[in-house]
Amino acid sequence: MTQTLIRNVRIASMQENGRPYGELAAGEILLERGKIVALGTSLPVRDEAEIVDAQSAWCLPGFIDCHTHLVYAGNRADEFAKRLRGVSYQAISAQGGGIKSTVRATREASEQQLVEHAIQRASRLAEEGVTTLEIKSGYGLDKETEVRMLNAAKQVGEKLGIHIQRTFLGAHALPPEADTDADAYIDFVCNTMIPYIAENQLADAVDVFCETVGFDLVQTRRVFEAARQAGLPVKGHVEQLSDSKGALLAASYSALSVDHIEYLDPSDVSALADAGTVAVLLPGAFYYLRETQLPPVEALRQHQIPMAISTDLNPGTSPIASLLTCANMACVLFRLTTEEALRGITCHAAKALNLANKGILREGADADLCLWQINSPDELVYEINRYRPVAKWVGGQRVI
Amino acid sequence: MTQTLIRNVRIASMQENGRPYGELAAGEILLERGKIVALGTSLPVRDEAEIVDAQSAWCLPGFIDCHTHLVYAGNRADEFAKRLRGVSYQAISAQGGGIKSTVRATREASEQQLVEHAIQRASRLAEEGVTTLEIKSGYGLDKETEVRMLNAAKQVGEKLGIHIQRTFLGAHALPPEADTDADAYIDFVCNTMIPYIAENQLADAVDVFCETVGFDLVQTRRVFEAARQAGLPVKGHVEQLSDSKGALLAASYSALSVDHIEYLDPSDVSALADAGTVAVLLPGAFYYLRETQLPPVEALRQHQIPMAISTDLNPGTSPIASLLTCANMACVLFRLTTEEALRGITCHAAKALNLANKGILREGADADLCLWQINSPDELVYEINRYRPVAKWVGGQRVI
Ligand SMILES: [Zn+2]
Ligand SMILES: [Zn+2]
Repeated sequence: MTQTLIRNVRIASMQENGRPYGELAAGEILLERGKIVALGTSLPVRDEAEIVDAQSAWCLPGFIDCHTHLVYAGNRADEFAKRLRGVSYQAISAQGGGIKSTVRATREASEQQLVEHAIQRASRLAEEGVTTLEIKSGYGLDKETEVRMLNAAKQVGEKLGIHIQRTFLGAHALPPEADTDADAYIDFVCNTMIPYIAENQLADAVDVFCETVGFDLVQTRRVFEAARQAGLPVKGHVEQLSDSKGALLAASYSALSVDHIEYLDPSDVSALADAGTVAVLLPGAFYYLRETQLPPVEALRQHQIPMAISTDLNPGTSPIASLLTCANMACVLFRLTTEEALRGITCHAAKALNLANKGILREGADADLCLWQINSPDELVYEINRYRPVAKWVGGQRVI
Repeated sequence: MTQTLIRNVRIASMQENGRPYGELAAGEILLERGKIVALGTSLPVRDEAEIVDAQSAWCLPGFIDCHTHLVYAGNRADEFAKRLRGVSYQAISAQGGGIKSTVRATREASEQQLVEHAIQRASRLAEEGVTTLEIKSGYGLDKETEVRMLNAAKQVGEKLGIHIQRTFLGAHALPPEADTDADAYIDFVCNTMIPYIAENQLADAVDVFCETVGFDLVQTRRVFEAARQAGLPVKGHVEQLSDSKGALLAASYSALSVDHIEYLDPSDVSALADAGTVAVLLPGAFYYLRETQLPPVEALRQHQIPMAISTDLNPGTSPIASLLTCANMACVLFRLTTEEALRGITCHAAKALNLANKGILREGADADLCLWQINSPDELVYEINRYRPVAKWVGGQRVI
C-alpha cells in the first residue's frame, strides 16, 4: 500500500487540545489506505513512500458543507432583479415564481441535466477546499423527481471525487398538485417515499421544513416518526422565520442538527445539549433575506452546542457557492470567532452529518485534507475570495 | 492587422439605448488593433480573420474595479480574530495595529515583494472578468515608499496583462513620525510629493481621506489645489463616517469621484451633478464595518449621478477580492438594481477613472471584453462565486 508523508507542515487538527485550532506540535502527517495513520515527527516510512514537502504550509481538514440544496434546475435571478426594481413578492408568486418555479424546472430536467448544473456549483465549493458535501432533495415533491435528485447527488460526488451525504427533504414544500391538502401530502411522504428511500439507501437522513409557511409541528412529528421507523436519523429547518418550537421537537428525536435557528428561544437551547444536536448556522440566507434577528449564539456557547456553518446553497434564498465566504459572514454578521467559524466548517459540520472520521486530523480519521499557504488559519475567514488550497487529498487521493 | 470576429453573441453594450444593459440587436463584434471596430450582423471581414463562435454567450465590457488599495504588505487577520474575541480597538491600536501595522510592513517590503503579494489579490479579480484596475498608494506616507507602491502597481498591470490606473493617496493617514503635525505633513504632500509624482507621471489622479479621523477640509483643499497646479484630477474618500462636507469640496474641484459617501447629505447631491462627479459606492467596507447608514441612493438616482461600485480592496476594512461579490452586496445591502450594479462595474466605473473608451461596447472603444455563459446578466450579480468568463480579451488580446 502506498504511503504519503506530508512533512514540514503546521497542523490545525481541530482536536480539542486547548490550543487554537487544535494545533499539534507534530510536523508530519502519514497517509495510508485512505486514512491518516500517524501524526508526529520523524515518522518511520517505507522506502517507496511518497514524500510531500509542505514548506511550512498549514494543513486543515477538508471543509464540509453540511447543508445544501445544490441539485436543481432553472434559476431565479430574474426574480431577484424584479424585486430590486420594486415588484412585490405577491406579484412574483402569482406569476409562478418562488420555489414553484424551481420545482417546475427540476421536474422537467433529466438526471444528466441535474448533474451537469450541480457540478458547476459543487466545483466552486471543491475549489475552495470542500471535500464533503451534503445535498438535499426537495424540489421534486413527487417520488420520481425526488429519487432523481438523490441519484443526481450521488453522481456529483462520483464525478467530482468528493464525498456526498444525501438528505431526503420531501417535506420541503407542498407540491402544486396537492393544492392545500398538506396532511395528504405528508401521508405520501411518510407512507410511500420514506420507506422507499430507506429501502433503496438513497439518503442518509430525513429533513423537514418546519415553519409557519412550511409544515407544522404535528406534520413534522409524523415525518420524524416515519424516519425513525425506517432507521434514518433526522434534522430540521427550524426557527428560521418564527419560534415555532421545531428545535425542541427535533431534539426529542435526537436530531443530528437544527438548521437556521435565528428565532430559537435561548431557553430551548439546553434541550439541544441533552440531545447532542448540532446548531447549523446559515448566514448566507440571513444575508440574502436581510434578516435582522440573530441566532442565539451566546446561549449556544454557554451550553457548548457545536455550531456548524454551511452555505445553504439554493436558488432562492442563498445562491452562494463559497463556504469560506459563509464562514466570513458567520464572523462579520453573527460575531463568531475565526476559530468557531473554521470548526463550523470542519469538525462541527462533520458532527451535523454524523461523520465521526471527518472534519478532524487524528490517527484513524479519513485522509481528507488540504494544505494552505497562510500564516494563520484566521486568514482563511478574514479575506473573501483570496485563498485556494495549494494541495488537497480526498480519501488519501491527491486531487490538487 | 489581425481581425477577430466574435459571432453568435448577445451584446450587453452598456450604452444608453433604452434597453436593459444597453443590449444591441447586433450579434457580432469585430476587433482590430485593440479596438472594437464594428458591432452588427453579417460584418465583412478579411479572409484571415479569426472567427470565435460565442454559442449564444453574453458579451459584457471587461469589469473595472475603480477603487482599490491592493498594493501592501502584511495582513491584519490577527486583528480581526482579536476583535471577534472581544479585544478592543484601543488595545489593538496600542499594540501597533490598524493602518500603522500596514505602513510598517509596506515600508519594509521591497518592490518585488509588493508586486508578488498584489498579484495574488489582483489575479482573483482578473479571474472574475476585471480588465481595468485602479490602485492607490497610501501605505508608505513617505516619498520613497509611496513611489515604490506606485511602481509596484504598474508592474502588477504589466505582469497580469490588465490595465492599471494609479492614484496618489499620500494624504491617507498621518505617518507615525509626523506625530500630530498634520499641517507639516500636508506641506510635504503638496510641495514635495505631488510635484514629483506629476513630473514623473507616476499617478493618474490624487486622492485624500477627508474625515474627522483623516484630514480636514482645509488640508484637503490644499491637496486638491496642489493637484490642480500639477495638472492631476482629484477624487476623495469622503462622508464615510460623518457628514464632513468633503463631497461638496471635491465637487468644487470637479472631482472624478466621491467615494464611500454613506453620510452624504442628500441635499448636497446636486453639486455632484453640476460637477459631473461619479458616486463610488463601496459595500465591502460597509459590510466589514457593520455600518448601518446607507448611502443616499434615491437622491443619487434623482440627480442621475452615475453610481460606480468597487471592492475598496484593502487589508483593514475591505479584504474582499471579488468585484462581483461587491456588486451583489450593492444589490442586497444598498438595494441597487442588477442593472445599476453591472453599470457600476463597467461604464460608471470607467467614468470614475476618466476612461472614455472603456466599460462600454461601441465602435471605437477599447477591446476589453468578456464572454459569459449565462441566460441574463442578472445572474452575474445574483449568485456569489458562481460565474467566470468563458473568454476574455484585453486590448484585443485574448487572455482566457
Ligand atoms: Zn436549507
Ligand atoms: Zn478606500
